[in-house]
Amino acid sequence: VDFKLYSYYRSSCSYRVRIALEYKKIQYTYIPIHLLQNGGEQNTEGYSKLNTKKEVPTLTHQDFHLSQSMAIIEYLDEALPKPQLFLGDAKQKAKIRQACELINSGIQPLQNLRVLNKLASDFKIDELQKTKWVVDHVQSGLAALESFLSSHSGQFCFGDSITAADLFLIPQLYNAERYKMDITLYKQLSKINKNCLQLESFIKAHPDQQPDAPK
Amino acid sequence: VDFKLYSYYRSSCSYRVRIALEYKKIQYTYIPIHLLQNGGEQNTEGYSKLNTKKEVPTLTHQDFHLSQSMAIIEYLDEALPKPQLFLGDAKQKAKIRQACELINSGIQPLQNLRVLNKLASDFKIDELQKTKWVVDHVQSGLAALESFLSSHSGQFCFGDSITAADLFLIPQLYNAERYKMDITLYKQLSKINKNCLQLESFIKAHPDQQPDAPK
Repeated sequence: VDFKLYSYYRSSCSYRVRIALEYKKIQYTYIPIHLLQNGGEQNTEGYSKLNTKKEVPTLTHQDFHLSQSMAIIEYLDEALPKPQLFLGDAKQKAKIRQACELINSGIQPLQNLRVLNKLASDFKIDELQKTKWVVDHVQSGLAALESFLSSHSGQFCFGDSITAADLFLIPQLYNAERYKMDITLYKQLSKINKNCLQLESFIKAHPDQQPDAPK
Repeated sequence: VDFKLYSYYRSSCSYRVRIALEYKKIQYTYIPIHLLQNGGEQNTEGYSKLNTKKEVPTLTHQDFHLSQSMAIIEYLDEALPKPQLFLGDAKQKAKIRQACELINSGIQPLQNLRVLNKLASDFKIDELQKTKWVVDHVQSGLAALESFLSSHSGQFCFGDSITAADLFLIPQLYNAERYKMDITLYKQLSKINKNCLQLESFIKAHPDQQPDAPK
């Protein structure tokens, strides 16, 4: 097996890459990095050489290592193009990337563990305030995405084929549900969610199915 | 002129795209969107049809419109590949994207105007606390980037050629300096900054040179 993925079961960025690997039927070794135990295993000297931002995921391919889920998924799509995740001509690929980035830079960074911990410690906010912060950002991001996709979606984000956009959407909706948000408010997004969650690659990549998920 | 850019002079995401346009010598019409005046011009009905997240930049190319700076720069690089911004083989391009994302999803989202306004209104924090929040996130992001680039940089982020990574770095350093951060702490990054700021495309794209910059 040439590929290794350093992953945390509940990390939405790791989840995106796991779907890509499963969808492309790439065998890989799963290396759990527990973000909470042992002072955060991402902070060890060995791991931070692989990933200078001390985050998951990191993918290694033989002696090559790479982080940032967007960069990893683009790389997998260039190195192993079938089935393609950035589908279509330059304009279509651009729209797929726009959808990915609405989540990748527009939502996820504002609600990840490190940021929430910093909010709590800098501003002494309580759990209720923290939840409101997350929900507000996720709602405005998902609303923008729902509206953007209205001229693109079919069974999935872009017509009836899986694209990279679906790999970003499903983990973000999983996160939203952890915060008890009602995702059926977003009719297209929740329909796409249902469709994706029936597919083998999404099932295998789900947080609950990972070796480091609690029993 | 086939291209129009909806931009705000001081927006670092707009600045990235302006450098790409100048570097590729693409003529474009500049359409200023003032993020503060008139209740935020990004919030008008007309603009929010173009950009459902109500952000800058948006690029239009004939009847095609696109937002998210990463998606725009990838699109320009596919549609008008010379000179190339994502240079090299799949592995090299992946590393360039990783550097871009360390800024695009790792730093910028935590210190943009909308997020800072929300911090102030949700948690009643003062200017000093706001500045500390920005500086902490920018510092940890730039430190991770400085360390990551140690095995890649030359005159620029990747060797001695301009790549997309430089288009993300220079606007982020401009922002850091607005917050009075000492960017010479990052030896490679500040050297790259100096080198880039001498180039015509970076000079033309600079916030101070835009039609909507205050006199």
